[in-house]
Amino acid sequence: MTQLLKVQNFTVSADGVACGENQTLERPFGHVDPGQLFSWAGATASWPGRRDPGGSRGLDDYMTRDFSLNIGAEIMGRNKFSPQRGPWENHEWQGWWGDEPPFHTPVFVLTHHKRPSFTLSDTTFHFVDGEPADVLAQAREAAQGKDVRLGGGVSTIREFLDADLVDTLHVAVSPVKFGTGMRLWDSPDDLRDRFHLDVVPSPSGVTHHLFWRK
Amino acid sequence: MTQLLKVQNFTVSADGVACGENQTLERPFGHVDPGQLFSWAGATASWPGRRDPGGSRGLDDYMTRDFSLNIGAEIMGRNKFSPQRGPWENHEWQGWWGDEPPFHTPVFVLTHHKRPSFTLSDTTFHFVDGEPADVLAQAREAAQGKDVRLGGGVSTIREFLDADLVDTLHVAVSPVKFGTGMRLWDSPDDLRDRFHLDVVPSPSGVTHHLFWRK
Repeated sequence: MTQLLKVQNFTVSADGVACGENQTLERPFGHVDPGQLFSWAGATASWPGRRDPGGSRGLDDYMTRDFSLNIGAEIMGRNKFSPQRGPWENHEWQGWWGDEPPFHTPVFVLTHHKRPSFTLSDTTFHFVDGEPADVLAQAREAAQGKDVRLGGGVSTIREFLDADLVDTLHVAVSPVKFGTGMRLWDSPDDLRDRFHLDVVPSPSGVTHHLFWRK
Repeated sequence: MTQLLKVQNFTVSADGVACGENQTLERPFGHVDPGQLFSWAGATASWPGRRDPGGSRGLDDYMTRDFSLNIGAEIMGRNKFSPQRGPWENHEWQGWWGDEPPFHTPVFVLTHHKRPSFTLSDTTFHFVDGEPADVLAQAREAAQGKDVRLGGGVSTIREFLDADLVDTLHVAVSPVKFGTGMRLWDSPDDLRDRFHLDVVPSPSGVTHHLFWRK
């Protein structure tokens, strides 16, 4: 059984921006308003952050409820994990997600600055340095036969795309433009040479882009 | 946690026909060619009947890989289980699916003609008579907190719709017309009074209809 490397529910603007510049503790997405990017996901019944009953169960909900299906590990970049840069000043920062992170699997955080692993609820964060292929090998072993999610951000996804290690990508394109910021692509067509692509407009206004390796 | 009753991957023609007339052992769908209905599903990586690697991983694959997600039991009609009608002549018939049925849960077969339960691999078939609400209560208990799939055929889905027990429906509409046969609806719009509806055309040619209760 193949263990896929999958990008899931990654959302960018119509001009390809996934995250703003000048990320801070107060503004994890920098100058970009994450509400404008993620409102499609927050409206669904299966959004991991949902606290009340209700929510839509149409197309967008297929995307959010697929988030954890057969996923055994996540790989994320340092900048998704933390607003800090450079060596860790201390180990107090434990991510943006509180005591119950939505991952429920081992998470491998890419960083040149090592720190000890720690566990919050059923999510364990490991801090790893290395080439994408080596990190993927570690994540696959931890995933115990299941697939591995590539959680972003942009630099991390680009790095694994450049190494040709990504099997599928789900990118939701939101009908907002930011002008500047961290850009996943100039156009989804950039990936057509290596991937099949289904372009699926949702009634919510986002357009789901579903890529799978040729 | 709500236990939903869900119709999944149910496929009809553009004129609403899910199954032909004159079902026989040789022709489980009667005069209808099931290949014309289900080719969209058979092309996906996650189709339960797939025996070789490969297959598409776009929109249609989200539908087929959702088939078993959080499902703890199935309810099906007698005519989905068997081409026989009336009292069981014997108990040799064990369904169309061979030694490894694709359900992997308890399955409740609606019939006025009782017979003993039996197990094939990890699927146990029970034969039950009763009102839809009573059968659903049995299936929910067997599902142990998970959702229940309503597997069809047409008469069974109509019966549970009439009793207002269905929470979500995924119906794929195939671009073929059969003229006659067992018809799910005159039009998907028939259900709009009680359900939200996302209509999602797939690049494969089918149009996914995703209903959820208002």
